[in-house]
Amino acid sequence: MRMYDIIFKKRNGEELTKEEIDFFIQGYTKGTIPDYQASALLMAIYFQGMNKRETAELTLSMVHSGTTIDLSSIKGIKVDKHSTGGVGDKTTLVLAPMVAAAGVPVAKMSGRGLGHTGGTLDKLESIEGFRVDLQLDHFIKNVNEIKIAVCGQTGDLAPADKKLYALRDVTATVDNVSLIASSIMSKKLASGADAIVLDVKTGSGAFMKTIDDSFVLAKEMVDIGTNLNKNVIAMITEMNEPLGYAVGNSLEVQEAVATLKGHGPEDLLHLCIELGAAMLVVGGRTSNMEEAREILGRTIKDGTAIEKLKDMVKAQYGNCSQIDDPDLLPQAKHIVDITAETEGYVHGIDAEEVGRAALVIGAGRETKESPIDYSVGILLIKKVGDKISKGDILAKVHINDMLKLEECTEKLIEAYDISMEIPDKRLLIFGKVDKEGIHKY
Amino acid sequence: MRMYDIIFKKRNGEELTKEEIDFFIQGYTKGTIPDYQASALLMAIYFQGMNKRETAELTLSMVHSGTTIDLSSIKGIKVDKHSTGGVGDKTTLVLAPMVAAAGVPVAKMSGRGLGHTGGTLDKLESIEGFRVDLQLDHFIKNVNEIKIAVCGQTGDLAPADKKLYALRDVTATVDNVSLIASSIMSKKLASGADAIVLDVKTGSGAFMKTIDDSFVLAKEMVDIGTNLNKNVIAMITEMNEPLGYAVGNSLEVQEAVATLKGHGPEDLLHLCIELGAAMLVVGGRTSNMEEAREILGRTIKDGTAIEKLKDMVKAQYGNCSQIDDPDLLPQAKHIVDITAETEGYVHGIDAEEVGRAALVIGAGRETKESPIDYSVGILLIKKVGDKISKGDILAKVHINDMLKLEECTEKLIEAYDISMEIPDKRLLIFGKVDKEGIHKY
Repeated sequence: MRMYDIIFKKRNGEELTKEEIDFFIQGYTKGTIPDYQASALLMAIYFQGMNKRETAELTLSMVHSGTTIDLSSIKGIKVDKHSTGGVGDKTTLVLAPMVAAAGVPVAKMSGRGLGHTGGTLDKLESIEGFRVDLQLDHFIKNVNEIKIAVCGQTGDLAPADKKLYALRDVTATVDNVSLIASSIMSKKLASGADAIVLDVKTGSGAFMKTIDDSFVLAKEMVDIGTNLNKNVIAMITEMNEPLGYAVGNSLEVQEAVATLKGHGPEDLLHLCIELGAAMLVVGGRTSNMEEAREILGRTIKDGTAIEKLKDMVKAQYGNCSQIDDPDLLPQAKHIVDITAETEGYVHGIDAEEVGRAALVIGAGRETKESPIDYSVGILLIKKVGDKISKGDILAKVHINDMLKLEECTEKLIEAYDISMEIPDKRLLIFGKVDKEGIHKY
Repeated sequence: MRMYDIIFKKRNGEELTKEEIDFFIQGYTKGTIPDYQASALLMAIYFQGMNKRETAELTLSMVHSGTTIDLSSIKGIKVDKHSTGGVGDKTTLVLAPMVAAAGVPVAKMSGRGLGHTGGTLDKLESIEGFRVDLQLDHFIKNVNEIKIAVCGQTGDLAPADKKLYALRDVTATVDNVSLIASSIMSKKLASGADAIVLDVKTGSGAFMKTIDDSFVLAKEMVDIGTNLNKNVIAMITEMNEPLGYAVGNSLEVQEAVATLKGHGPEDLLHLCIELGAAMLVVGGRTSNMEEAREILGRTIKDGTAIEKLKDMVKAQYGNCSQIDDPDLLPQAKHIVDITAETEGYVHGIDAEEVGRAALVIGAGRETKESPIDYSVGILLIKKVGDKISKGDILAKVHINDMLKLEECTEKLIEAYDISMEIPDKRLLIFGKVDKEGIHKY
């Protein structure tokens, strides 16, 4: 088999066989197929596409390019959750305790990755003593005992995807549905989940710019799962602004804790209830979404969800008193108000730009080795739909290094899309896709 | 400027600017743009194409990626000729003396390249003492004195094309009209020609498989020339079998000499007259093709063409007695008849396969360093249209190493397409393209 022939075939619009896909993925992972042939194939796939079978086989081939985690010694259906993008996305911190409190085991491995703001692991590490570097047997033991554990990836999950993603990123071959779907699904499948709930973000900052395209991507990922006998539900959700008000590690933990205690932001709670309900459904707790929502609502009202978070923090060596009193979490030295320079209504808040503003003051990593300042971040005061007068406080910057304030402020002002017309109300969730098909709300 | 944006733009079907094309070609030549980005762009070009302006600018950018030859000290319009493929293609050996004898200067630089059979330079080197490594001033002096010189390339002509061609060859991005056209034209323009005649081969072994596609390629190259103020004529010619009977260096020189003496194969003479007439037209000798054909015919009848070949051989230190008596050229030890195993009519002779048969016995180079055996080759006896009975001699193999006979024979038998139906007569020349447009015969 020759890589040339595989490129030629796809270029001419033909289907690739399982053997050809495996030859490409194995060869590229090992380095026997050079980058320049891989990028030519990726561009050919961009133009000619891949069908459902090819996409499922590409996914599986990437799963098998590295370590796969065996979670079979955990009792019950293990449900994972993934979001396709997310500045200010603290859903895992809220969702995981709620779902575990409802009786579905949550064994979640998160990548650390680069990002404007910290990932889930970084957020958890803003809790004093919290450890994310559990060994696999320890991780499994925790899930069996208290139904919940969130830790870093062990082993080299889907290295083919890692290598291909880096190549796609510099060759303008990221935005193809089959490639995006197989990339996301390969990592989830390699980490051992039985069932997966996907949060597919839509909007200008997301992979998919339009709602229709987001449904197409969601369907592609659900089909991959169905093809491989995994129960997958995807929700298509708004990304017209950051979720909740907090952006930054310690601030986001505070907001998550508030939500679990019953006084969090409405949009965050709503999304967590919906995604969580889907997790209960694919996790076999109930087949009825309405019942699932009620079960999850009760975990907040009766305090079992916040207790579950504390169980996890304790089991992973964190300081539980910071959950009881979030003021004990790392706090920035200064809190600076950012005020509006124009008047009108907020039509959107560019989440990427807010992320860059938070990165400037130290909330995220510039490079893999950069340290994170857990205490800093941004608290949005005005959100989409709010009316603004000149001088109103748009946001509060929690900052240590005042030299960075000006750049952060500029980006924040830039992030706000303010104009005079009254904005239409947009849905937070546009619909869902499951194995039965597409359901638009 | 970033290469990513250039790929992205072309992928989305947009036109590239001159600056973007130059950035790509200069960066790729210098090595600051990696292969994997170049191959992604090439595949995007394969799908989205380039317009006339982009193609002309790509060509010019490749011309300027290396040395350009200045032939301005040669008096008159310097006409070059290029063929897009050619096992058994000894047209240069026939054409160049005819055109020079008709008064148009022929300053031809040939690449040596890899190939199944030797190139023009190798054919000339089968003449004892013949030197192709002339310095530029010597080359120019010869053309000014005797109107003709054929030598190897001096300097690094269009290195961008060389590097890109090697990449296209392994990434299934060869067969795009703009890329083929700019590749050919960049080399010709870098070697200093004022006007160019192109022989665009059509058929299964050629770049262009159909006559229509060949006209498209021809038009593209003529348009590049027109865009850059160079007079270009392209002839679209048959490649259903090797040209003439001889394949192999010394055998091809013998056939060329025979043709110049007035007793060569009809197809070879016909093609040389047509291409040569086009050279006289772009060279300004006459504007009338019919008159040009007559002028060229006379150079054979009156012996001026063969005298011109001898002038060149003498001026380049070759042994002229081998032209007077071609039996003095290197001769193989054995001549073996290859006989037909089936009966019917010859419908085609796969020129590539005949080339591979000749390569096996030493007529070409396996690697750049391989020596060539000038004496060996294949003399076709039966050609397209001929009726075959079992046992008829199809071809004669001129061979030194009898251990290679079996493999050579197998390939030769394989090359012959013989079936019972009477083949249609096909034209040798399907038409021409010049700055006025397409003329189908």
